Formats: sequence, structure tokens, C-alpha cells
Amino acid sequence: MAGVKNIRVAVLGASGYTGGETLRLAVRHPNIDIIGLTAEHRAGEALDAVFPHLGGLGLPNLMKIGDLNLDSLEAVFCCLPHGTTQEVVKSLPRHLKAIDLSADFRLRDPEVYAAWYGHKHFAPELQPEVSYGLTELSREVILQKRIAACPGCYPTTALLPLIPIVAAGQIDADEIIIDAKSGVSGAGRAAKEGMLFSEVGEGIHAYGIGGHRHGPEIDQELSTTAGRPVVASFTPHLVPMNRGILSTIYVKLSNGITTNDLRRTLVEQYAREPFVRVVPEGVSPATRHVRGSNQCLIGLFEDQIPGRAVLLSVIDNLVKGAAGQAIQNFNLMFGLSETAGLQQAPLFP
Amino acid sequence: MAGVKNIRVAVLGASGYTGGETLRLAVRHPNIDIIGLTAEHRAGEALDAVFPHLGGLGLPNLMKIGDLNLDSLEAVFCCLPHGTTQEVVKSLPRHLKAIDLSADFRLRDPEVYAAWYGHKHFAPELQPEVSYGLTELSREVILQKRIAACPGCYPTTALLPLIPIVAAGQIDADEIIIDAKSGVSGAGRAAKEGMLFSEVGEGIHAYGIGGHRHGPEIDQELSTTAGRPVVASFTPHLVPMNRGILSTIYVKLSNGITTNDLRRTLVEQYAREPFVRVVPEGVSPATRHVRGSNQCLIGLFEDQIPGRAVLLSVIDNLVKGAAGQAIQNFNLMFGLSETAGLQQAPLFP
Amino acid sequence: MAGVKNIRVAVLGASGYTGGETLRLAVRHPNIDIIGLTAEHRAGEALDAVFPHLGGLGLPNLMKIGDLNLDSLEAVFCCLPHGTTQEVVKSLPRHLKAIDLSADFRLRDPEVYAAWYGHKHFAPELQPEVSYGLTELSREVILQKRIAACPGCYPTTALLPLIPIVAAGQIDADEIIIDAKSGVSGAGRAAKEGMLFSEVGEGIHAYGIGGHRHGPEIDQELSTTAGRPVVASFTPHLVPMNRGILSTIYVKLSNGITTNDLRRTLVEQYAREPFVRVVPEGVSPATRHVRGSNQCLIGLFEDQIPGRAVLLSVIDNLVKGAAGQAIQNFNLMFGLSETAGLQQAPLFP
Amino acid sequence: MAGVKNIRVAVLGASGYTGGETLRLAVRHPNIDIIGLTAEHRAGEALDAVFPHLGGLGLPNLMKIGDLNLDSLEAVFCCLPHGTTQEVVKSLPRHLKAIDLSADFRLRDPEVYAAWYGHKHFAPELQPEVSYGLTELSREVILQKRIAACPGCYPTTALLPLIPIVAAGQIDADEIIIDAKSGVSGAGRAAKEGMLFSEVGEGIHAYGIGGHRHGPEIDQELSTTAGRPVVASFTPHLVPMNRGILSTIYVKLSNGITTNDLRRTLVEQYAREPFVRVVPEGVSPATRHVRGSNQCLIGLFEDQIPGRAVLLSVIDNLVKGAAGQAIQNFNLMFGLSETAGLQQAPLFP
Repeated sequence: MAGVKNIRVAVLGASGYTGGETLRLAVRHPNIDIIGLTAEHRAGEALDAVFPHLGGLGLPNLMKIGDLNLDSLEAVFCCLPHGTTQEVVKSLPRHLKAIDLSADFRLRDPEVYAAWYGHKHFAPELQPEVSYGLTELSREVILQKRIAACPGCYPTTALLPLIPIVAAGQIDADEIIIDAKSGVSGAGRAAKEGMLFSEVGEGIHAYGIGGHRHGPEIDQELSTTAGRPVVASFTPHLVPMNRGILSTIYVKLSNGITTNDLRRTLVEQYAREPFVRVVPEGVSPATRHVRGSNQCLIGLFEDQIPGRAVLLSVIDNLVKGAAGQAIQNFNLMFGLSETAGLQQAPLFP
Repeated sequence: MAGVKNIRVAVLGASGYTGGETLRLAVRHPNIDIIGLTAEHRAGEALDAVFPHLGGLGLPNLMKIGDLNLDSLEAVFCCLPHGTTQEVVKSLPRHLKAIDLSADFRLRDPEVYAAWYGHKHFAPELQPEVSYGLTELSREVILQKRIAACPGCYPTTALLPLIPIVAAGQIDADEIIIDAKSGVSGAGRAAKEGMLFSEVGEGIHAYGIGGHRHGPEIDQELSTTAGRPVVASFTPHLVPMNRGILSTIYVKLSNGITTNDLRRTLVEQYAREPFVRVVPEGVSPATRHVRGSNQCLIGLFEDQIPGRAVLLSVIDNLVKGAAGQAIQNFNLMFGLSETAGLQQAPLFP
Repeated sequence: MAGVKNIRVAVLGASGYTGGETLRLAVRHPNIDIIGLTAEHRAGEALDAVFPHLGGLGLPNLMKIGDLNLDSLEAVFCCLPHGTTQEVVKSLPRHLKAIDLSADFRLRDPEVYAAWYGHKHFAPELQPEVSYGLTELSREVILQKRIAACPGCYPTTALLPLIPIVAAGQIDADEIIIDAKSGVSGAGRAAKEGMLFSEVGEGIHAYGIGGHRHGPEIDQELSTTAGRPVVASFTPHLVPMNRGILSTIYVKLSNGITTNDLRRTLVEQYAREPFVRVVPEGVSPATRHVRGSNQCLIGLFEDQIPGRAVLLSVIDNLVKGAAGQAIQNFNLMFGLSETAGLQQAPLFP
Repeated sequence: MAGVKNIRVAVLGASGYTGGETLRLAVRHPNIDIIGLTAEHRAGEALDAVFPHLGGLGLPNLMKIGDLNLDSLEAVFCCLPHGTTQEVVKSLPRHLKAIDLSADFRLRDPEVYAAWYGHKHFAPELQPEVSYGLTELSREVILQKRIAACPGCYPTTALLPLIPIVAAGQIDADEIIIDAKSGVSGAGRAAKEGMLFSEVGEGIHAYGIGGHRHGPEIDQELSTTAGRPVVASFTPHLVPMNRGILSTIYVKLSNGITTNDLRRTLVEQYAREPFVRVVPEGVSPATRHVRGSNQCLIGLFEDQIPGRAVLLSVIDNLVKGAAGQAIQNFNLMFGLSETAGLQQAPLFP
């Protein structure tokens, strides 16, 4: 946006994958000045020591959060591990807007948070300042709040197709089955045996069956939409690819509703959205067709079982499922064009 | 089996993946003599021209089916493309047992066959000689028949966990949802743009949604078990790996039935089976743990939605889903130990 | 470039990988209007029927070359298969600049062309209008010519590090060994058994040993640089990844020359280049650190054998090795900033 | 071997990849009784807790080395990390034969060991009892010694083609360039950031350039063969695949020697070997054609540079490069058929 003053930001937690991806996008954003990068354990190092692909871009060295001059900033992107974000955000000066990519502020009920994350929430008093940042469906709230809790990658793929049709009463909210498949970058950059190339290459398995932390997040938003408690079946799988999530969602249609009715609802909902697209009948969306972009593609099919439908939804987990949606929220919160910095076409093959 | 006379076999269609895999297993089978290999378009070539990994094993050159001396054989493995098998099997001398890895004899109803495969069945008169070769659940029929129609790879993963619990009336047979994920070798060796490395690497997508040919095969067997017409929801996905199928199966429990009841049924069913194993509670079976072996692993979990359960079933699509099950049926039909030639431990990583 | 009039271009051969990649970059280029897309066998179809990742971008439908209004254009990107480009370029109106991504005009000697491509060159008379478009090392020639023959992906990785040190006489030009490793997209999108996922996944092999078509192209440029005939050893390998080329180059140092001397030459040569970067001592460049970008990274190491050095050079074969370098040449030929449309940061992971 | 008494063995370090692979092979070996498995940090656990693919095979639980009844054993396979093996082997009763898969006893010169491994060798006094276990080329020594130091995976691929032609004086031993490419399992199972799927997927890079620990091992054996100190150029690369090593070896022919002379030497050397095969002219061996097997395939080509040749050598790094060669040495040391337990055909795709 010509004539717009640049926003001065820092990226906290710049050595993980969501941090690196936020930088990839922010460095080419026309209205962002990247003032500071933090990584507690790598402070003092050049960024290309942790992310060689971000070398040569003139970005600052890594530092500790404590060494940031927070007063000079207008916003922070929090790409910190789950659990540490609460204390950091709590300690920030109140003039700063925070776009949080962690799970720390997504669950509104502190009891639910404690049950799934194993400790009391450290900053429940901030909740009134927090929006759940599923951009396309929460713009008004995001605009009113200082902190955007960006949705998890799985919830983003599940909720974009589900919320409009649950809101329209077109499906049975008690019979939603979400079978989700994710690339490995969703597991983060921590060195764990289970995420070694040799452990996850050439195979697929489900994990967190009956109890993944993104489950209550999905249920929270579906319940809000339905106006009553809803529990969905959610089973994530790990696929040998770096990026991408596909959610295959099995739903039971309400009486008299057809798959085409769902399609109409979704087409109407997203007709003017730059980042969500309902693909034509018969097209099966693939994660590789959104790689590197902020797109979400949604497809719909009749099920073989009468009265049921299958929805398919794909995103790049690090973009629309993390850094891209974060920048989209940032754009919204600062009055910029929502697509600023997010117009790359997907990378295929 | 010391003292057993070797069986003289030919492998028809030895240049495709199921043919190659049948050879990999058969060449080390203690009671098989591989007399002939056919491949119409590669006749005259050495086997290692089409399968370098099978060089140095002393196997015969490829020839045309018409050049085989069928009288000298006792059995054939048919690894031909779907549609061509019927005419070939029809033309075989009647002393020959046929183990068919194609889809040509799996569907008992010729009308269903015609509807899904686009042409009239060429050999409906052979149907009385055919068994559906899901070994663990059909031994008596397989023993009585001359031709074993080996199940498709997807049906194998779906039916091994489902048939016992449908037979026991423990789940609602009208609410079965099968979300299946397959490696790329399941698509065969024909050169198609959609199966190029660059098209299927680094991504996942569903295909044949609402209408894959393995659907009616699954429905046929579930209907037989339930004693009434049953339609399951079946959605296959293509995963960037060479081998393996994982079926994640979502079921609604019958009144008063628990996930543990399903577990007990399956444990009891497969307690003495060498190739099917129910893994302990909390374990999620992975395709990489059965790679190269004839194993099927089955896991069970409670769903988050009360009254529902999630079953997981993994096989190597080319072994238990094709060549391994074929040899298992062959062993059964010739009175050999069912595990002969099939005892390799899986290859990991 | 604000105030610059947009250039009207067509992309010929828009259904292959280099065509798709040219579109991915061109659609976000600030000074390009994409007027026409051609694909002889898919004419009439929407672009997203062949490249779903390019849907929703407002690009025109595919057509036949014969249906293009060539008079209205200023430039064409030729992404046609090798061999067909000559006749097409020959038939173009002379006001059109052509940026050719095929091999058709790279070899200056028609006899060498005929020896390697199996037929007489169809348009040797165009040779005086052609530049060899290795941008960083040929700007003056590129500016003078109407047609830019963009280098092959392998030659690009090999020549960027080699030409400056051969020109400086710092290595023995008769002892250059280039061991190159490429992702599979370099083989194009034609449906060939050998490029199926199941054929090239989980393994590596060399091909074209002692006789790959990129060999004479490398030799041509090294010979021009050395001022006498030079033959290099060039062995390409196929790696199970979509994108990227790494060339590991083994060289014998001239008398008295050290690895640091080579480093100094290369650092000086590329100090002001936006797309070529010599990485610090001890850093081994990886293809994944340039994915999706127009970067070339070059590393240098002392060999264990005294008097020898190892150079490493990485690019994204579809960007700097094809579409990116093509746009870089286009920018140069039309007086635009050389980085226009090419500033995306690499995509990792 | 019917009538042979089984050998009682333990596998030390059974929770790493070489340990798991040794078990995969040993459990189906006709003459091995697996008595004990050790893994210090996982003692007390069932084997399938660390290797689910080895469940259901009746193997013992993991224990500490100190809890093994060593007196009851005849041999141990040492699959321990480099550095810890020396002390363990030193402490074993002298009646035990040890087949060591680590690097601890490969370097004969304790000074060289100290220089490359950063500490004094803890058991130099055992060196007279150690053979370098490159089976095909060292049978007489292996037979005389109590301890077999199995070669590294890279040295195995490099030495099998090189030693015979160096011994024959057919190449210039001072100009050997080994460009090696390995799958990720070669890096072991330790949780390191650099070996995460997202770090090594979709890309390739060289590492240890000018200084990998397998370099001195290769040089030691080449020097012994040449009868004078030889230093080779050795550069390993990491490829996104689980298994397999390809070494592309560039050599300068001695005066009057042709590529065909090298071929004759190698064909003659390996004509009667069950596990090493020289492939026909024009064939480029691929790692995927030896996956899961103990095979080494060797190919030869003329280089474009006159007077030079290119050799290609492939193995499965975990089989011929580790566990398979270990069992081959075990077979030799115990008077069994050398192929016992090693006859699986390769797994492709």
C-alpha cells in the first residue's frame, strides 16, 4: 500500500518453523519493518545459522526477548512453544498488538486449557483482549481485540468448511467425523526420535487418536456455532511430506438437505474471499496445490451412504495454518489490505 | 516342507508390480518351481530388463502366454491387468489351479461387475469355481475351488477388522466409514501423468470419492456377512510412499457394546493366525511396520463421540494386499503350510 | 517499477513444468501482462485443468499457437519440448523477442546439435540473433540479441562456479569432474514409466553417464572461456525430490593456487549479484535452501587430496535453472530491474 | 544347514537401526538362537516398544549388558554407538566371538583413531585379534581372528570396486574421487535436529566435505592394497530416502588400460561371489534394486574425458553396509554357508 507507514514488528521465537515462515512472508511484506528477532538459545547468532534459506535478506541477528526494545515496536508475532507464550505476552507493554501462533490463548475456558495442557493458565486475565483469529469468520472480533490467537492448523482446515454449514443447520453436528492428514513440519523443529526422517518416511500412521489437543479447539468453535456443546470425532495422521494438511470430513445431512445445498452455502460464504475457494464439482483438492500459499481449497462430494456427504479441505499448515493466517490477521488489525504480503502463487511441483 | 514335491507354476503378467512381488516371494518359496514368466509386450527379454532387482536369481526369460507349455504346470498366478484376466483364465486347461490377483473374479454378481467395469463379464460361467480369497475368513471355500480371486488391497485392510464385528452384530453396518490411505504402487506400473513422482510427491489427495471400484467389493462381503444389503462409505487417498495401506475405520457401536467388546471379538478371531495381529491398547499401527511382510496389524480406540469407535488396519498393499495373500491361498490350495515362503520379518526403516 | 508500461507476453507450452513455473512467476511480475497461453493438446481447456495450483488467478484459457494474435505481443516465453521450438521460433514475427527455455538454440555449432539431438537443426539461420542466456556472465550479449537461449539446469549450476575460475586460469580445465544430482521435475511432465513415483522414490541412480545432452552445452561454454576445446566429466543423478540441483565439482588447482584463491575470485565475481551468493567457509549449500527462489549458492572446500578443491553449487532447477533465469533475461532484455518478479524468499521446509 | 547345531548369540545395542536390522535377519537365520538383546536405556522393555516391526516374533525383552549371561553365549553382534564398543568388547569373556558393527576397531593405527575420534583408543591391545571384515576380500584374515570389525557403509561401496583394480595397478591410486550418496538411516537413530524429516526431506546436500570419518578407513585399505600411503577424495551426501548408498567413483586409468580392462578384473574377481555382481555394460545400478538385500551391484562406464572411467557401486547401507555383512562374517567365522539367512530377494518398489 503506497503511502502507508510501515509497521515496526518483532518475531519472537524466530528459530522454529512457524517463526521462519513468518519471516519468509514478512520480509517481502510491503508494510512491515522487521526490527527484532528472538530465540533464547541461539541469541547472538546470525539468522542464517538457524535458517540458511533466509540468508542474504538483511534480517537482524537473533537476540533474547529481554534485550528487545519493546517500546519502539507496534506489534509482535509470537512463534514461541506452547506454554511459554502466556508469560511473555503478559509481560509485554500494552501498546503492542500481539499475533500469537501458539495454542496458548485459543481455548477460552481456563479449565479446558488446564485439562489438555497439564497446568493452570498463567494469564487468564488477558482473555478479554483475545480474539480467536480464524480470519474469514471472525473479522469483527479480531478488529476489536489487541491479541489474535491464531487457530491451530488442523482446526483451520476443519472449521472453514464446517462452521457455515453447522450455522445453517444443514448437518447433524453430533455426527461430524474429521480424518485429518498432516505433513511433518506441523510437529515443529524439536529433535524427537519419532520425527526423524527414517521414522516417518515411507509410511503413514494415526496419532493422538481420541485425544489430540486440537480436538477441544475444534469442539469449542463448533459448540459456539451450534449454540450447544458439540463433540466431533477428530483423528490426525502423519504423512511423509513437509507441508500440507488435508481434512476429509464425513457429515450426515439434515433432513431434506443435499450435498448441493452444502455447496451453495459454502460458495456463498466464500465468494468474495481472496484465500478460500470452493473447487468445482468433481474436483478433489490436493495439498500440493496450495503449497507455500495462504489458500484454503474446499471440495464436496456425495457419500455412497445416502444422506451423507464428504467434504475435503486443504491448506499449507505453515501458511494458512500458521504464519499466513497470522499475517492476514495482522493486516486486518492494522488496517492494511488483507492480502498484503500474501499473494504468492502456490509452488508446484 | 522337506519331502514335499515342488509345485510347477507360471506367473502371468510378470512385468507389473504385483507380478514382480509374486516373483520376489515365489523365488524363495521352498515348494515352488517357477517354470514360466509372461509379459506380452516384453516377450523375449530377460527378467532383469524389466525388474533389475530380480536379476541374478536364475529366473526364466519373459515369453508370451501363447508360448507357455501349460500342460506341464500345476498352477498359475495371474497378475494381469483388470479386464484381460477373464479371457486368459477361461482359456486355461482345467487341471490348472489359478490364483488371480486382478479384480476380474472378485464380484460375484455379473451385473455389478458390468456396472463398475464398463463391459459384460467374459466368463461368468467360471463363477462356481471361484472363491473370494480373503484367506483368514474363507479357508473352507478357498479349499473347495479351483480359482482364488484374491481380494483388492483396500478391501483386505477393511474386511479383516470389519467382518468379525459385523458378524457379531457389534456395530451398525449402515454407518461404516472407511478412510483409506495408500502408497503409490497400488496404482500399478502403467505410465500415467498422474502417477509421476513430481505429481504425487510432497502432497496428499483423495480420489474416487463416492465411487471407487473397491467399494462394491467391500459392500459385497459386508452384505454377505450382514445377510442384507450394506453400503459403506469408502474414500481412498494417495500418499507419497511406495508401499502400504492404512484404513482408518469409524464405526457406531450397537447398543450396550463397548470398544473393548470389539477388541475381544477381534483378538479371539485372530488369536491363532500367523499373519493378523491385534496390537495392544494405545498402540497405533503404522504401515512402515508391516513393509515387505504378509502381516496385517489392527488397532482399536474409543472415539471422542460416545458410542463410536475407531479401528486402524495396516498392510503392505503388494504383500498381504496382493502377492503375499496370493501365495497364502496357493499354500492353502496345495496343502502346504500356510506360512511357507511368507516368513520374512518386515523391513524398517 | 512504477510508471513502466507492462509488457504483453504469451507463454508457449504452458502445460509442462517449465511453462507452469514461468506462469507462477509471471503472474506476480509487476510489469508483465499474460495475454496468451498455448498447449496444443489441451487447447480450449482452462489452465486449472492442467495446473490446479494456478486456478483462481484470472489467467486465460489454453489455446493453440496458431490461434494466438502474435502481432499484439512483445515477447514469448517458449516452454516447448526440445525439437519443436526451432520451427515455432522461426515462424514468429520478427518484432517479437523470444525467451527460449528449451535446448533448441543453446548449441552454437549445428553439427554438435545434430550429433546430440539426432536431426539437422531446423533454423540455423537464426543463430546470429541468439544469446546463450547465462545472465550473470552474458549480459552484454543478451542485450544485443532478440532470442535468449536459456541454459539448461545442469549447465547453470556447473557454469556459474566454473567459468570465473577457468577464466582466471586457476584450475586445470582438462580435469573438471561434475557430479550432479537433480530432482525429478527436471525430467519434465511426459508420462514415462521411469519417472513414476514408485520407480524413483526411495532410491538414487546415475543416468546418461558418459553421454548426457547437457554435457556438450557445458563443454561449449567452458571451451569458449578457456579459448580451446575442453571436455568435462559430467554425470547426472536422479534424486527422490521434486526440485533442486546440486552439482559437486571436483577440480585440480593450477600451480600455486589455493582453494582460497578460488573463493576470492568467486566472491569478487558475484559480490554485487542479487541471485548468486558464495556461502561462508565451512558451509555446505543445500538445494532446500533455494527452493522456489532464483538463488544460486556456491560453496568451496579443500579436498583431502592436496592440490584439489571441491565446489558445491545449488539451484532450484525450475527457477534459476529454467523459469527464473528466463524472467531474469526478459527483465534485462526489456530494460526492467533484473530482480522484478523474482524476489520471493525460498520455501523451507 | 540341516544338522548344524544352532549358535547362541546376543545382540548388544538392539534399539538402534543396525541392531534392529541385525535382528530382522538373525530371527530368520536357520542357525542362530537369539538369547539376549541389550539396550541400556530401554532395559526391561519389550522389543516391540522400540521396534514395532519386530513384534510377534518371540524375541526376548531388552536388558542391560551387565545382566546378560555371557558364559552361555558363543557370539555377540555389537551394534553399539562408536566409542562405547571398545570397553564392552574388552570386558567380554575370551571364548566369545564378536562381530562389531561400530567403527571402534576398523582403524588399525591407534594414532589415526585418536585423531579422528577425539580420544585415545581404549583397547589397542585387542587389535591383533581383529580382522577388517570386508568379507569378499578378507576371508582368510577373518577366519583367523576372534573379532570382525565390519567395514563402514561408505567404505564397503567404495572398496569392493576399487581394491581389485588398485591391486591390479589399473588406475592411478592418487587420483581417486569418491562421490557418495546415502539414505538417512546411515545417520543412526539419535534424535538430532539435522535428521528430522522436515530438515532432510525434499533436498540434498553434501556433508563432512574434506573430513568424514569414513575417509581414513577407505585410505587405510587402499594404502594397504597399494603398498604405499594413498589418500582418496571422499565426499558423502545425504539423500531423502531411508536406505541405500550409491558411490560414483571417478578414476584415471593407468597407461594403456581401458574401461573394459577394469571390467574384466572386476568380473573375474566377483564371478563366484553370491553377493557382488558386476552389471552388464550400459546398465546403471540403482540403490532401490538392492534394498533389503545383501547385494552389491557394480557398474562401469567410460568417462567423457579420455583416459578416465566412472564406477558405480550400490548397496543397502543397513544390510551389506552393516547387518548383512556382519551376518556374512558370522557365517564365515562359524563355518556356516556364507549365504545362510541372507537370501532374501530385494524389495522393489
